[in-house]
Amino acid sequence: MTVNVLNNSEKTNTEILVDLLYRKVEGRLLEDAEKAFLNYLTVVWQTKDLPEVQDLVSSYGIKRAGFPLKGAENLTPERAAFLNGFTAHFLDLDDAQAHFRGHPSAVIMSTLFAVTTPEDKLEDFLWAFIQGVELAGKFGWVLNPAMALQGWHTTGMIGTIAAAAALGIYKKLPGQQLKSLLSLAATQASGLQIEAGSNGKPFNAGMAARDAVNAYLFCQTGLQADLDPFSAKHGWFKTVAGIDFQGAVIAENWLKPAEIEDPGLWIKQHPFCSAAMSGYDAAKELYQRGIRARECTRVILHFPAGGDHALRFKQPRTGKEGKFSLEYIVWQVLNDGDVHDQYFAVAKVKAEFSKWQKRIVRTNDLPLAEITARPTKITVELKNGQTETAMVSFPLGSAQQAFKRTELLWKLRQQVLMSDHNWQQFKLLLTRKNCTVAQILQLLKDRVGVNK
Amino acid sequence: MTVNVLNNSEKTNTEILVDLLYRKVEGRLLEDAEKAFLNYLTVVWQTKDLPEVQDLVSSYGIKRAGFPLKGAENLTPERAAFLNGFTAHFLDLDDAQAHFRGHPSAVIMSTLFAVTTPEDKLEDFLWAFIQGVELAGKFGWVLNPAMALQGWHTTGMIGTIAAAAALGIYKKLPGQQLKSLLSLAATQASGLQIEAGSNGKPFNAGMAARDAVNAYLFCQTGLQADLDPFSAKHGWFKTVAGIDFQGAVIAENWLKPAEIEDPGLWIKQHPFCSAAMSGYDAAKELYQRGIRARECTRVILHFPAGGDHALRFKQPRTGKEGKFSLEYIVWQVLNDGDVHDQYFAVAKVKAEFSKWQKRIVRTNDLPLAEITARPTKITVELKNGQTETAMVSFPLGSAQQAFKRTELLWKLRQQVLMSDHNWQQFKLLLTRKNCTVAQILQLLKDRVGVNK
Repeated sequence: MTVNVLNNSEKTNTEILVDLLYRKVEGRLLEDAEKAFLNYLTVVWQTKDLPEVQDLVSSYGIKRAGFPLKGAENLTPERAAFLNGFTAHFLDLDDAQAHFRGHPSAVIMSTLFAVTTPEDKLEDFLWAFIQGVELAGKFGWVLNPAMALQGWHTTGMIGTIAAAAALGIYKKLPGQQLKSLLSLAATQASGLQIEAGSNGKPFNAGMAARDAVNAYLFCQTGLQADLDPFSAKHGWFKTVAGIDFQGAVIAENWLKPAEIEDPGLWIKQHPFCSAAMSGYDAAKELYQRGIRARECTRVILHFPAGGDHALRFKQPRTGKEGKFSLEYIVWQVLNDGDVHDQYFAVAKVKAEFSKWQKRIVRTNDLPLAEITARPTKITVELKNGQTETAMVSFPLGSAQQAFKRTELLWKLRQQVLMSDHNWQQFKLLLTRKNCTVAQILQLLKDRVGVNK
Repeated sequence: MTVNVLNNSEKTNTEILVDLLYRKVEGRLLEDAEKAFLNYLTVVWQTKDLPEVQDLVSSYGIKRAGFPLKGAENLTPERAAFLNGFTAHFLDLDDAQAHFRGHPSAVIMSTLFAVTTPEDKLEDFLWAFIQGVELAGKFGWVLNPAMALQGWHTTGMIGTIAAAAALGIYKKLPGQQLKSLLSLAATQASGLQIEAGSNGKPFNAGMAARDAVNAYLFCQTGLQADLDPFSAKHGWFKTVAGIDFQGAVIAENWLKPAEIEDPGLWIKQHPFCSAAMSGYDAAKELYQRGIRARECTRVILHFPAGGDHALRFKQPRTGKEGKFSLEYIVWQVLNDGDVHDQYFAVAKVKAEFSKWQKRIVRTNDLPLAEITARPTKITVELKNGQTETAMVSFPLGSAQQAFKRTELLWKLRQQVLMSDHNWQQFKLLLTRKNCTVAQILQLLKDRVGVNK
């Protein structure tokens, strides 16, 4: 790793970072951010009426929740952020990013919505999001895969800081306050990967959003935290990863390329871990070739070393664990041609799966790939003695096979059930330079009462 | 370290911990807990009217705050916990414990007060506190000094889990919910030591209390997190410290002796870091022998290796940094015979100190001591050519030189300014088996309006 110091030698790491965050980003990146925005709304709407979400909402004493939530008289912005993050990540349907190894929108957008006031512009929201993704990706690039392999849930760990950074930019905080904000985000950053497969995982996303908002509220009073939380000697990187972090390392490629375009955001079709997306596409290919589960005597899942780390469960017991099991996904696809989203919500997986699962083995024999790729190969040995294989590196929804804006708009339209008139208004708003986030929320909110 | 498995081999680490937390503790330990309770109230009352605390209180839109706070219509229990913790730790006047290397009451009692309902008994509060201290101490015994030396603020890290454990016991949660509660505490546990010297440090204490309450609210909805957060293979200990934790290691000496009595709680006289308490007493001894700052040509502060780790600032710039500077404390004592509490609040230390400070050096030449001791020696070289030394290992306020109950009651009386009638009632309440925490709070609260 070559390092150019960029005349920053007299600045602290945190000062360098703050300068980077204030950089204006290029207009074309806004298109990527808008796609993530549409997908976030779709996912939250798809999830918000589930009993787990509604249980949480009622535990806060709110009757009707117009998602995404913002702080209001009957709901603190911390609680709004937490509920947004929990909901956005609950089905594991939200976007993912490879350097970050986490879920950007669930933490960053959940935070931004929670603190939105009537004046806040959609364009500022999207720009702040791009910078949050940038921080998440660049920090992830420095820290991963070690951080994830150590058992940290990077969505919580790095996500808290990314969400706080985006919030600071959204609200145009002055430098000193932004440094305090980042400091309080760093001191709150946490999250364990063992929560995957339980409600603790979406909790972690909510936690990160909540913590960013908490830090913001604290800084607004003028109280200051340590102003160089990323100090090489004893800052956050040193404590969590033993790394002598140098701000110049990320300065030299900040937004070059932007993390939102390369490695970019992965957008999902189904509620399972993004690490299974290539395997899912490979299984579909096999099904289309006529392969059926009952004819397989042996199924081999091939990954590069560490490529199945996030797929924690070979023998999932619950649907939630099944989100992190390529075995569970392959079984569904080879049986029925596709997964059933509701199978990821069952309390107990079918006995039929547990029996069939014994035919599957994993192996880590693929060569290591670029971070933008997620190669997965499936070999099936059939009763007739034949063998078939399928391999996918860039699944549908990956940055290389991205959904189009029109596809994402269509997905959202399926969820929000707006009147045609409001839908036209909504699409028009998106194109207007001065559109506010509150205007968007108003159009979505109008349907809450009707929808339930 | 010898380990007896205690027939627990079939239980998970978290199940072992839950069993330990449910153990009834001995009555005499309640006396230690009551002392901590009195000191907590004293410290919170001494701090609650400071501008920083009141700024935070008003930022939450509350007009009158009857400390310690509990969740109420206009204040979520998370916010109450945060404000309690921030206030209790703000002056660094709160108690400390050597294994934990942190501040038990600021996190645990702040949490318990925040969720107190009219029915909750003081005795249950104190028992829960004892168990929280026990977890903090035993976890600290496993993790420190490595955790602190790595830059973690153990008050935040271990404190979150200790506060959650106490909360679970206080509220008599069933085993499954208690496991989820501990899991969500572990996934939220965080805190950086670099915040020492800024408002980020009391923020960390507030954060730990807030996170414990957040976890509790979440679990109350019935939502579950991973049920073995302390799994040896990939649980919290593994991720944060690379340790293959075995629950049996802490089971064999759980409450034998109890952490609240050995190493016990240190209670402070002045608002500086407990790592400076021995040095402070040694400086006072030198002053009493007639040594004066102006006569010293050289001052040597002797510690064991690592003994001055928490005393981060040799040349503090602000009063807040001066809380973590034995240099700053020794200068005050050798000038004026004692420290001035307000000197730890100034925005800039006096130029006079900065000049005199150059005469001071540190050395780590003392032998390592028992964890219960904190040896500090001071050598002064005088203008007349003479040399004097003083050494203290167990300062006033340490468990070995503990304040008496009557002294702590007197300190509290100085703060709360109750009427004599209410004070007699207060003391009577403390002795009653069925006294509730709400009754105590009511007596304190009555004075808020009058006092301000």
